[in-house]
Amino acid sequence: MIPHDTHLHIGSLLFEGIDQIDLTGPFEVLSRIPNATYRIYGKTAAPVRDVKGLRLTPDATLAEAPPLDVLHMPGGYGQEALMDDAEVLGWIRQQASSACSMFSVCTGALICGAAGLLRGRRATTHWSAFHLLPLFGAIPVNERVVVDGGWIFAAGVTAGIDGALRLAAELRGDEAAQAIQLHMAYAPEPPFDSGTPETAPAAILEEARRSVRTMTVQRERTARRIAARLGIAVPAAGRE
Amino acid sequence: MIPHDTHLHIGSLLFEGIDQIDLTGPFEVLSRIPNATYRIYGKTAAPVRDVKGLRLTPDATLAEAPPLDVLHMPGGYGQEALMDDAEVLGWIRQQASSACSMFSVCTGALICGAAGLLRGRRATTHWSAFHLLPLFGAIPVNERVVVDGGWIFAAGVTAGIDGALRLAAELRGDEAAQAIQLHMAYAPEPPFDSGTPETAPAAILEEARRSVRTMTVQRERTARRIAARLGIAVPAAGRE
Repeated sequence: MIPHDTHLHIGSLLFEGIDQIDLTGPFEVLSRIPNATYRIYGKTAAPVRDVKGLRLTPDATLAEAPPLDVLHMPGGYGQEALMDDAEVLGWIRQQASSACSMFSVCTGALICGAAGLLRGRRATTHWSAFHLLPLFGAIPVNERVVVDGGWIFAAGVTAGIDGALRLAAELRGDEAAQAIQLHMAYAPEPPFDSGTPETAPAAILEEARRSVRTMTVQRERTARRIAARLGIAVPAAGRE
Repeated sequence: MIPHDTHLHIGSLLFEGIDQIDLTGPFEVLSRIPNATYRIYGKTAAPVRDVKGLRLTPDATLAEAPPLDVLHMPGGYGQEALMDDAEVLGWIRQQASSACSMFSVCTGALICGAAGLLRGRRATTHWSAFHLLPLFGAIPVNERVVVDGGWIFAAGVTAGIDGALRLAAELRGDEAAQAIQLHMAYAPEPPFDSGTPETAPAAILEEARRSVRTMTVQRERTARRIAARLGIAVPAAGRE
Protein backbone atom coordinates (compact mmCIF):
# COMPACT_ATOMS: atom_id res chain seq x y z
CA MET A 1 0.00 0.00 0.00
CA ILE A 2 1.46 3.33 -1.08
CA PRO A 3 0.92 6.19 1.43
CA HIS A 4 -1.79 8.62 0.29
CA ASP A 5 0.66 11.53 0.36
CA THR A 6 2.98 9.85 -2.18
CA HIS A 7 2.34 11.09 -5.71
CA LEU A 8 1.30 8.29 -8.10
CA HIS A 9 2.10 7.80 -11.78
CA ILE A 10 -0.77 6.03 -13.50
CA GLY A 11 -0.76 5.01 -17.15
CA SER A 12 -3.11 3.40 -19.66
CA LEU A 13 -1.98 1.55 -22.76
CA LEU A 14 -3.66 2.73 -25.98
CA PHE A 15 -3.47 0.74 -29.22
CA GLU A 16 -5.07 0.38 -32.63
CA GLY A 17 -8.24 -1.73 -32.42
CA ILE A 18 -8.86 -1.11 -28.71
CA ASP A 19 -12.46 -1.35 -27.50
CA GLN A 20 -12.68 2.30 -26.53
CA ILE A 21 -14.76 1.97 -23.37
CA ASP A 22 -12.12 -0.40 -21.93
CA LEU A 23 -10.05 2.79 -21.82
CA THR A 24 -12.63 5.55 -21.43
CA GLY A 25 -14.66 3.88 -18.67
CA PRO A 26 -11.60 3.65 -16.38
CA PHE A 27 -10.37 7.08 -17.66
CA GLU A 28 -13.29 8.72 -15.86
CA VAL A 29 -11.98 7.24 -12.59
CA LEU A 30 -8.21 7.20 -13.11
CA SER A 31 -8.10 10.85 -14.19
CA ARG A 32 -9.73 11.83 -10.87
CA ILE A 33 -7.57 9.86 -8.43
CA PRO A 34 -6.16 12.37 -5.91
CA ASN A 35 -2.45 13.19 -5.94
CA ALA A 36 -1.72 11.34 -9.17
CA THR A 37 -0.50 12.01 -12.69
CA TYR A 38 -2.48 10.05 -15.25
CA ARG A 39 -1.37 9.67 -18.85
CA ILE A 40 -2.22 7.52 -21.86
CA TYR A 41 0.67 5.81 -23.65
CA GLY A 42 0.85 4.57 -27.25
CA LYS A 43 3.53 2.90 -29.36
CA THR A 44 3.75 6.20 -31.19
CA ALA A 45 2.18 9.59 -30.49
CA ALA A 46 -0.20 9.18 -33.46
CA PRO A 47 -3.97 8.82 -33.04
CA VAL A 48 -5.40 5.30 -33.28
CA ARG A 49 -8.88 4.00 -34.09
CA ASP A 50 -10.96 1.94 -31.74
CA VAL A 51 -12.68 -1.16 -33.09
CA LYS A 52 -15.71 0.96 -34.07
CA GLY A 53 -13.73 3.90 -35.38
CA LEU A 54 -13.39 6.32 -32.46
CA ARG A 55 -10.14 8.26 -32.83
CA LEU A 56 -8.12 8.41 -29.62
CA THR A 57 -4.76 10.09 -29.15
CA PRO A 58 -2.04 9.08 -26.67
CA ASP A 59 -0.47 11.67 -24.37
CA ALA A 60 3.00 10.18 -24.88
CA THR A 61 4.87 7.15 -26.22
CA LEU A 62 5.86 4.00 -24.34
CA ALA A 63 9.48 5.14 -24.40
CA GLU A 64 8.51 8.38 -22.66
CA ALA A 65 6.77 6.66 -19.75
CA PRO A 66 8.37 6.80 -16.32
CA PRO A 67 8.26 3.68 -14.13
CA LEU A 68 4.53 3.59 -13.41
CA ASP A 69 2.90 2.85 -10.08
CA VAL A 70 -0.23 1.65 -11.88
CA LEU A 71 -0.54 0.27 -15.40
CA HIS A 72 -3.97 -0.15 -16.99
CA MET A 73 -4.27 -2.56 -19.93
CA PRO A 74 -7.50 -2.31 -21.93
CA GLY A 75 -8.63 -4.91 -24.48
CA GLY A 76 -10.41 -5.08 -27.81
CA TYR A 77 -9.74 -7.00 -31.02
CA GLY A 78 -6.48 -5.10 -31.51
CA GLN A 79 -5.08 -7.17 -28.64
CA GLU A 80 -4.29 -9.92 -31.18
CA ALA A 81 -1.51 -7.90 -32.82
CA LEU A 82 0.00 -6.87 -29.48
CA MET A 83 0.32 -10.50 -28.41
CA ASP A 84 3.16 -10.83 -30.94
CA ASP A 85 4.61 -7.36 -30.38
CA ALA A 86 7.89 -7.82 -28.51
CA GLU A 87 8.28 -4.09 -27.86
CA VAL A 88 4.88 -3.73 -26.17
CA LEU A 89 5.16 -7.04 -24.28
CA GLY A 90 8.63 -6.09 -23.05
CA TRP A 91 7.35 -2.68 -21.92
CA ILE A 92 4.47 -4.26 -20.00
CA ARG A 93 6.84 -6.76 -18.33
CA GLN A 94 9.22 -3.94 -17.42
CA GLN A 95 6.41 -1.85 -15.92
CA ALA A 96 4.97 -4.87 -14.09
CA SER A 97 8.32 -5.49 -12.43
CA SER A 98 8.08 -2.26 -10.44
CA ALA A 99 4.37 -1.25 -10.48
CA CYS A 100 2.36 -1.63 -7.31
CA SER A 101 -0.89 -2.23 -9.22
CA MET A 102 -1.61 -3.84 -12.57
CA PHE A 103 -5.16 -3.35 -13.87
CA SER A 104 -6.44 -5.44 -16.77
CA VAL A 105 -9.79 -4.84 -18.49
CA CYS A 106 -11.51 -7.27 -20.86
CA THR A 107 -9.08 -8.97 -23.29
CA GLY A 108 -6.28 -6.82 -21.90
CA ALA A 109 -5.78 -10.01 -19.84
CA LEU A 110 -4.72 -11.87 -22.99
CA ILE A 111 -2.00 -9.28 -23.63
CA CYS A 112 -0.76 -9.75 -20.07
CA GLY A 113 -0.90 -13.50 -20.66
CA ALA A 114 1.25 -13.17 -23.76
CA ALA A 115 3.72 -11.16 -21.67
CA GLY A 116 3.97 -14.22 -19.42
CA LEU A 117 2.47 -12.43 -16.43
CA LEU A 118 -0.55 -14.64 -15.70
CA ARG A 119 1.10 -17.87 -14.54
CA GLY A 120 -0.65 -19.11 -11.40
CA ARG A 121 -2.69 -15.92 -11.18
CA ARG A 122 -6.46 -15.76 -10.53
CA ALA A 123 -7.83 -13.77 -13.47
CA THR A 124 -10.85 -12.94 -15.59
CA THR A 125 -11.56 -11.49 -19.04
CA HIS A 126 -14.45 -10.98 -21.49
CA TRP A 127 -16.86 -13.94 -21.53
CA SER A 128 -15.95 -14.71 -25.16
CA ALA A 129 -12.28 -15.26 -24.23
CA PHE A 130 -12.70 -16.66 -20.72
CA HIS A 131 -11.87 -20.25 -21.77
CA LEU A 132 -8.48 -19.09 -23.07
CA LEU A 133 -7.11 -18.02 -19.69
CA PRO A 134 -5.66 -21.47 -18.78
CA LEU A 135 -3.54 -21.32 -21.95
CA PHE A 136 -1.55 -18.59 -20.20
CA GLY A 137 -1.30 -20.52 -16.95
CA ALA A 138 -4.00 -18.41 -15.28
CA ILE A 139 -6.72 -19.68 -12.95
CA PRO A 140 -10.01 -18.43 -14.48
CA VAL A 141 -12.42 -16.91 -11.96
CA ASN A 142 -15.90 -16.12 -13.26
CA GLU A 143 -16.41 -12.88 -11.35
CA ARG A 144 -16.83 -9.33 -12.60
CA VAL A 145 -13.77 -8.04 -10.77
CA VAL A 146 -10.98 -10.34 -9.56
CA VAL A 147 -8.27 -9.11 -7.21
CA ASP A 148 -5.07 -11.18 -6.90
CA GLY A 149 -2.36 -9.49 -4.90
CA GLY A 150 -1.40 -6.30 -6.75
CA TRP A 151 -3.47 -7.28 -9.79
CA ILE A 152 -7.04 -6.27 -10.56
CA PHE A 153 -8.83 -7.94 -13.46
CA ALA A 154 -12.12 -6.58 -14.76
CA ALA A 155 -14.15 -8.94 -16.94
CA GLY A 156 -15.75 -7.55 -20.11
CA VAL A 157 -15.80 -3.98 -21.38
CA THR A 158 -17.95 -1.98 -18.89
CA ALA A 159 -16.56 -4.05 -15.98
CA GLY A 160 -13.61 -1.67 -16.27
CA ILE A 161 -15.66 0.99 -14.48
CA ASP A 162 -16.27 -1.29 -11.49
CA GLY A 163 -12.63 -2.40 -11.53
CA ALA A 164 -11.33 1.17 -11.68
CA LEU A 165 -13.41 2.17 -8.65
CA ARG A 166 -12.03 -0.84 -6.76
CA LEU A 167 -8.54 0.26 -7.79
CA ALA A 168 -9.20 3.86 -6.66
CA ALA A 169 -10.28 2.54 -3.27
CA GLU A 170 -7.17 0.35 -2.96
CA LEU A 171 -4.91 3.27 -3.87
CA ARG A 172 -6.52 6.19 -2.07
CA GLY A 173 -9.15 4.79 0.28
CA ASP A 174 -12.90 4.19 0.06
CA GLU A 175 -13.85 7.86 0.43
CA ALA A 176 -11.81 8.91 -2.59
CA ALA A 177 -13.52 6.23 -4.67
CA GLN A 178 -16.96 7.18 -3.34
CA ALA A 179 -16.38 10.84 -4.26
CA ILE A 180 -15.49 9.83 -7.82
CA GLN A 181 -18.53 7.56 -8.00
CA LEU A 182 -20.78 10.46 -6.96
CA HIS A 183 -19.29 12.75 -9.59
CA MET A 184 -19.88 10.01 -12.19
CA ALA A 185 -23.44 9.48 -10.94
CA TYR A 186 -22.63 5.80 -11.10
CA ALA A 187 -25.82 4.20 -9.83
CA PRO A 188 -26.50 2.04 -12.88
CA GLU A 189 -29.96 0.93 -13.96
CA PRO A 190 -29.51 -1.38 -16.95
CA PRO A 191 -32.83 -1.58 -18.80
CA PHE A 192 -32.38 -5.34 -19.40
CA ASP A 193 -30.67 -8.21 -17.61
CA SER A 194 -28.65 -9.24 -20.63
CA GLY A 195 -25.11 -8.37 -19.57
CA THR A 196 -23.72 -11.87 -18.96
CA PRO A 197 -23.92 -15.22 -20.76
CA GLU A 198 -25.72 -16.57 -17.68
CA THR A 199 -28.52 -13.97 -17.82
CA ALA A 200 -28.87 -13.10 -21.52
CA PRO A 201 -31.78 -14.70 -23.40
CA ALA A 202 -30.56 -17.94 -25.03
CA ALA A 203 -31.14 -16.74 -28.58
CA ILE A 204 -29.22 -13.51 -27.95
CA LEU A 205 -26.28 -15.45 -26.51
CA GLU A 206 -26.25 -17.92 -29.38
CA GLU A 207 -26.19 -15.11 -31.95
CA ALA A 208 -23.46 -13.26 -29.99
CA ARG A 209 -21.29 -16.39 -29.89
CA ARG A 210 -21.85 -16.85 -33.62
CA SER A 211 -20.88 -13.25 -34.37
CA VAL A 212 -17.54 -13.53 -32.52
CA ARG A 213 -16.75 -17.10 -33.65
CA THR A 214 -14.13 -16.13 -36.26
CA MET A 215 -12.34 -13.87 -33.79
CA THR A 216 -12.57 -16.49 -31.05
CA VAL A 217 -11.04 -19.19 -33.25
CA GLN A 218 -8.26 -16.78 -34.19
CA ARG A 219 -7.67 -15.83 -30.56
CA GLU A 220 -7.43 -19.48 -29.53
CA ARG A 221 -4.93 -20.20 -32.31
CA THR A 222 -2.81 -17.25 -31.17
CA ALA A 223 -3.11 -18.21 -27.51
CA ARG A 224 -1.99 -21.81 -28.18
CA ARG A 225 0.99 -20.61 -30.19
CA ILE A 226 2.00 -18.25 -27.41
CA ALA A 227 1.47 -20.90 -24.73
CA ALA A 228 4.00 -23.03 -26.60
CA ARG A 229 6.40 -20.06 -26.76
CA LEU A 230 6.03 -19.52 -23.02
CA GLY A 231 6.50 -23.24 -22.34
CA ILE A 232 3.07 -23.55 -20.72
CA ALA A 233 1.50 -27.02 -20.83
CA VAL A 234 -1.51 -26.63 -23.10
CA PRO A 235 -4.82 -28.16 -21.96
CA ALA A 236 -6.99 -30.04 -24.46
CA ALA A 237 -8.90 -27.91 -26.94
CA GLY A 238 -11.19 -25.56 -24.99
CA ARG A 239 -14.88 -25.06 -25.49
CA GLU A 240 -15.83 -21.90 -27.28
CA MET B 1 -41.32 4.69 -34.73
CA ILE B 2 -39.01 4.24 -37.71
CA PRO B 3 -39.20 0.80 -39.40
CA HIS B 4 -36.19 -1.39 -38.59
CA ASP B 5 -35.30 -1.71 -42.26
CA THR B 6 -34.92 2.07 -42.66
CA HIS B 7 -31.28 3.17 -42.38
CA LEU B 8 -30.69 5.60 -39.51
CA HIS B 9 -28.31 8.55 -39.28
CA ILE B 10 -27.16 9.00 -35.71
CA GLY B 11 -24.88 11.80 -34.54
CA SER B 12 -23.17 12.92 -31.34
CA LEU B 13 -22.10 16.48 -30.62
CA LEU B 14 -18.46 16.83 -29.53
CA PHE B 15 -17.08 20.03 -27.97
CA GLU B 16 -14.18 21.40 -25.98
CA GLY B 17 -14.64 20.69 -22.27
CA ILE B 18 -17.01 17.74 -22.72
CA ASP B 19 -17.08 15.13 -19.95
CA GLN B 20 -15.72 12.35 -22.13
CA ILE B 21 -17.81 9.47 -20.81
CA ASP B 22 -20.99 11.40 -21.66
CA LEU B 23 -19.88 10.69 -25.22
CA THR B 24 -17.91 7.46 -24.95
CA GLY B 25 -20.44 5.60 -22.77
CA PRO B 26 -23.20 6.03 -25.36
CA PHE B 27 -20.64 5.56 -28.20
CA GLU B 28 -20.31 1.92 -27.20
CA VAL B 29 -24.05 1.50 -27.83
CA LEU B 30 -24.74 3.94 -30.67
CA SER B 31 -21.86 2.59 -32.80
CA ARG B 32 -23.46 -0.88 -32.63
CA ILE B 33 -27.07 -0.03 -33.49
CA PRO B 34 -28.04 -2.18 -36.49
CA ASN B 35 -28.59 -0.56 -39.88
CA ALA B 36 -27.30 2.85 -38.83
CA THR B 37 -24.52 5.28 -39.66
CA TYR B 38 -23.07 6.83 -36.52
CA ARG B 39 -20.78 9.85 -36.60
CA ILE B 40 -19.39 12.41 -34.18
CA TYR B 41 -19.76 16.09 -35.12
CA GLY B 42 -17.69 19.06 -33.97
CA LYS B 43 -17.74 22.81 -34.71
CA THR B 44 -14.51 22.15 -36.61
CA ALA B 45 -12.73 18.94 -37.54
CA ALA B 46 -9.97 19.63 -34.98
CA PRO B 47 -9.46 17.49 -31.88
CA VAL B 48 -10.83 18.81 -28.60
CA ARG B 49 -9.94 18.09 -24.98
CA ASP B 50 -12.34 16.69 -22.47
CA VAL B 51 -12.55 18.29 -19.04
CA LYS B 52 -9.77 15.99 -17.80
CA GLY B 53 -7.64 16.24 -20.94
CA LEU B 54 -8.67 13.26 -23.11
CA ARG B 55 -8.19 14.21 -26.76
CA LEU B 56 -11.19 13.32 -28.93
CA THR B 57 -11.55 13.96 -32.64
CA PRO B 58 -14.82 14.55 -34.53
CA ASP B 59 -15.61 12.57 -37.67
CA ALA B 60 -17.02 15.67 -39.39
CA THR B 61 -18.18 19.22 -38.82
CA LEU B 62 -21.68 20.41 -37.97
CA ALA B 63 -22.01 21.84 -41.47
CA GLU B 64 -21.30 18.41 -42.96
CA ALA B 65 -24.05 16.64 -41.01
CA PRO B 66 -27.09 15.38 -42.87
CA PRO B 67 -30.49 15.75 -41.23
CA LEU B 68 -30.08 13.29 -38.38
CA ASP B 69 -32.63 10.78 -37.17
CA VAL B 70 -31.03 10.79 -33.73
CA LEU B 71 -28.97 13.55 -32.10
CA HIS B 72 -27.01 12.82 -28.92
CA MET B 73 -25.96 15.80 -26.78
CA PRO B 74 -23.36 15.08 -24.09
CA GLY B 75 -22.50 17.44 -21.25
CA GLY B 76 -19.50 18.58 -19.25
CA TYR B 77 -18.25 21.98 -18.11
CA GLY B 78 -17.73 23.02 -21.75
CA GLN B 79 -21.51 23.23 -22.02
CA GLU B 80 -21.28 26.77 -20.57
CA ALA B 81 -19.64 28.17 -23.72
CA LEU B 82 -22.11 26.41 -26.02
CA MET B 83 -25.08 28.01 -24.24
CA ASP B 84 -24.07 31.30 -25.86
CA ASP B 85 -22.98 29.82 -29.17
CA ALA B 86 -25.61 30.78 -31.74
CA GLU B 87 -24.13 28.49 -34.41
CA VAL B 88 -24.31 25.37 -32.25
CA LEU B 89 -27.70 26.24 -30.74
CA GLY B 90 -29.10 26.90 -34.22
CA TRP B 91 -27.73 23.57 -35.47
CA ILE B 92 -29.31 21.69 -32.56
CA ARG B 93 -32.67 23.42 -33.14
CA GLN B 94 -32.48 22.61 -36.85
CA GLN B 95 -31.68 18.94 -36.16
CA ALA B 96 -34.40 18.73 -33.49
CA SER B 97 -36.99 19.96 -35.98
CA SER B 98 -36.67 16.77 -38.05
CA ALA B 99 -35.02 14.15 -35.77
CA CYS B 100 -37.15 11.31 -34.45
CA SER B 101 -35.08 11.02 -31.26
CA MET B 102 -33.16 13.54 -29.21
CA PHE B 103 -30.87 12.08 -26.54
CA SER B 104 -29.42 14.31 -23.84
CA VAL B 105 -26.81 13.14 -21.32
CA CYS B 106 -25.86 14.99 -18.14
CA THR B 107 -25.57 18.78 -18.63
CA GLY B 108 -26.25 18.29 -22.33
CA ALA B 109 -29.76 19.11 -21.10
CA LEU B 110 -28.65 22.69 -20.31
CA ILE B 111 -27.46 23.12 -23.90
CA CYS B 112 -30.85 21.93 -25.14
CA GLY B 113 -32.44 24.32 -22.67
CA ALA B 114 -30.44 27.21 -24.07
CA ALA B 115 -31.65 26.18 -27.54
CA GLY B 116 -35.20 26.69 -26.22
CA LEU B 117 -36.10 23.04 -26.60
CA LEU B 118 -37.06 22.14 -23.02
CA ARG B 119 -40.22 24.21 -22.51
CA GLY B 120 -42.87 22.01 -20.88
CA ARG B 121 -40.70 18.94 -21.25
CA ARG B 122 -40.06 16.36 -18.51
CA ALA B 123 -36.28 16.23 -18.20
CA THR B 124 -33.31 15.36 -16.02
CA THR B 125 -29.61 16.23 -15.83
CA HIS B 126 -26.60 15.82 -13.49
CA TRP B 127 -27.54 16.19 -9.81
CA SER B 128 -25.40 19.32 -9.50
CA ALA B 129 -27.45 21.12 -12.17
CA PHE B 130 -30.87 19.55 -11.54
CA HIS B 131 -32.28 22.68 -9.85
CA LEU B 132 -31.56 24.71 -12.99
CA LEU B 133 -33.99 22.82 -15.24
CA PRO B 134 -37.04 25.03 -14.41
CA LEU B 135 -35.08 28.05 -15.67
CA PHE B 136 -35.48 26.55 -19.15
CA GLY B 137 -39.15 25.81 -18.65
CA ALA B 138 -38.54 22.10 -18.10
CA ILE B 139 -40.29 19.88 -15.57
CA PRO B 140 -37.49 18.28 -13.52
CA VAL B 141 -37.92 14.53 -12.94
CA ASN B 142 -35.48 12.94 -10.51
CA GLU B 143 -35.03 9.66 -12.36
CA ARG B 144 -31.95 8.18 -13.99
CA VAL B 145 -33.52 8.05 -17.45
CA VAL B 146 -36.52 10.17 -18.42
CA VAL B 147 -38.44 9.56 -21.64
CA ASP B 148 -40.71 12.33 -22.93
CA GLY B 149 -42.09 11.68 -26.39
CA GLY B 150 -39.13 11.52 -28.78
CA TRP B 151 -36.73 12.77 -26.10
CA ILE B 152 -34.58 10.68 -23.80
CA PHE B 153 -32.75 12.38 -20.95
CA ALA B 154 -30.04 10.56 -19.00
CA ALA B 155 -29.09 12.08 -15.66
CA GLY B 156 -25.41 12.31 -14.77
CA VAL B 157 -22.40 11.05 -16.70
CA THR B 158 -22.63 7.21 -16.62
CA ALA B 159 -26.43 7.38 -16.89
CA GLY B 160 -25.71 7.86 -20.59
CA ILE B 161 -25.04 4.12 -20.88
CA ASP B 162 -28.47 3.27 -19.49
CA GLY B 163 -30.09 5.95 -21.65
CA ALA B 164 -28.35 4.75 -24.80
CA LEU B 165 -29.55 1.19 -24.24
CA ARG B 166 -33.10 2.52 -23.80
CA LEU B 167 -32.66 4.46 -27.02
CA ALA B 168 -31.35 1.39 -28.87
CA ALA B 169 -34.42 -0.54 -27.74
CA GLU B 170 -36.75 2.25 -28.89
CA LEU B 171 -35.06 2.41 -32.28
CA ARG B 172 -34.38 -1.24 -33.07
CA GLY B 173 -36.25 -3.33 -30.52
CA ASP B 174 -35.37 -4.96 -27.21
CA GLU B 175 -33.35 -7.79 -28.73
CA ALA B 176 -30.97 -5.42 -30.50
CA ALA B 177 -30.36 -3.58 -27.23
CA GLN B 178 -29.91 -6.85 -25.33
CA ALA B 179 -27.31 -8.04 -27.84
CA ILE B 180 -25.35 -4.81 -27.38
CA GLN B 181 -25.62 -5.12 -23.62
CA LEU B 182 -24.19 -8.65 -23.78
CA HIS B 183 -21.27 -7.50 -25.93
CA MET B 184 -20.61 -4.73 -23.40
CA ALA B 185 -20.87 -7.17 -20.50
CA TYR B 186 -23.04 -4.53 -18.88
CA ALA B 187 -24.03 -6.18 -15.61
CA PRO B 188 -22.67 -3.50 -13.32
CA GLU B 189 -21.49 -4.15 -9.77
CA PRO B 190 -20.55 -0.77 -8.26
CA PRO B 191 -18.29 -1.38 -5.27
CA PHE B 192 -20.04 1.35 -3.25
CA ASP B 193 -23.54 2.85 -3.11
CA SER B 194 -22.31 6.39 -3.60
CA GLY B 195 -23.65 7.23 -7.07
CA THR B 196 -26.47 9.61 -6.11
CA PRO B 197 -26.89 12.50 -3.64
CA GLU B 198 -29.53 10.37 -1.90
CA THR B 199 -27.19 7.42 -1.26
CA ALA B 200 -23.71 8.98 -0.94
CA PRO B 201 -22.32 9.42 2.59
CA ALA B 202 -23.21 12.91 3.85
CA ALA B 203 -19.60 14.06 4.13
CA ILE B 204 -18.83 12.91 0.56
CA LEU B 205 -21.87 14.80 -0.76
CA GLU B 206 -21.01 17.95 1.14
CA GLU B 207 -17.46 17.93 -0.21
CA ALA B 208 -18.71 17.23 -3.75
CA ARG B 209 -21.14 20.16 -3.58
CA ARG B 210 -18.34 22.37 -2.29
CA SER B 211 -16.01 21.32 -5.10
CA VAL B 212 -18.54 22.22 -7.83
CA ARG B 213 -19.86 25.37 -6.13
CA THR B 214 -18.02 27.86 -8.33
CA MET B 215 -19.18 26.09 -11.49
CA THR B 216 -22.72 25.79 -10.15
CA VAL B 217 -22.96 29.51 -9.37
CA GLN B 218 -21.65 30.28 -12.86
CA ARG B 219 -24.12 27.86 -14.45
CA GLU B 220 -27.03 29.42 -12.59
CA ARG B 221 -25.98 32.92 -13.67
CA THR B 222 -25.81 31.76 -17.29
CA ALA B 223 -29.11 29.90 -17.03
CA ARG B 224 -30.90 32.97 -15.62
CA ARG B 225 -29.52 35.19 -18.35
CA ILE B 226 -30.64 32.73 -21.00
CA ALA B 227 -34.07 32.28 -19.41
CA ALA B 228 -34.51 36.05 -19.79
CA ARG B 229 -33.39 35.82 -23.43
CA LEU B 230 -35.92 33.04 -24.06
CA GLY B 231 -38.64 34.99 -22.27
CA ILE B 232 -39.14 32.27 -19.66
CA ALA B 233 -40.54 33.42 -16.31
CA VAL B 234 -37.71 32.87 -13.86
CA PRO B 235 -38.51 31.21 -10.52
CA ALA B 236 -37.00 32.57 -7.33
CA ALA B 237 -33.30 31.81 -6.76
CA GLY B 238 -32.87 28.03 -6.67
CA ARG B 239 -31.13 26.04 -4.00
CA GLU B 240 -27.69 24.78 -4.87
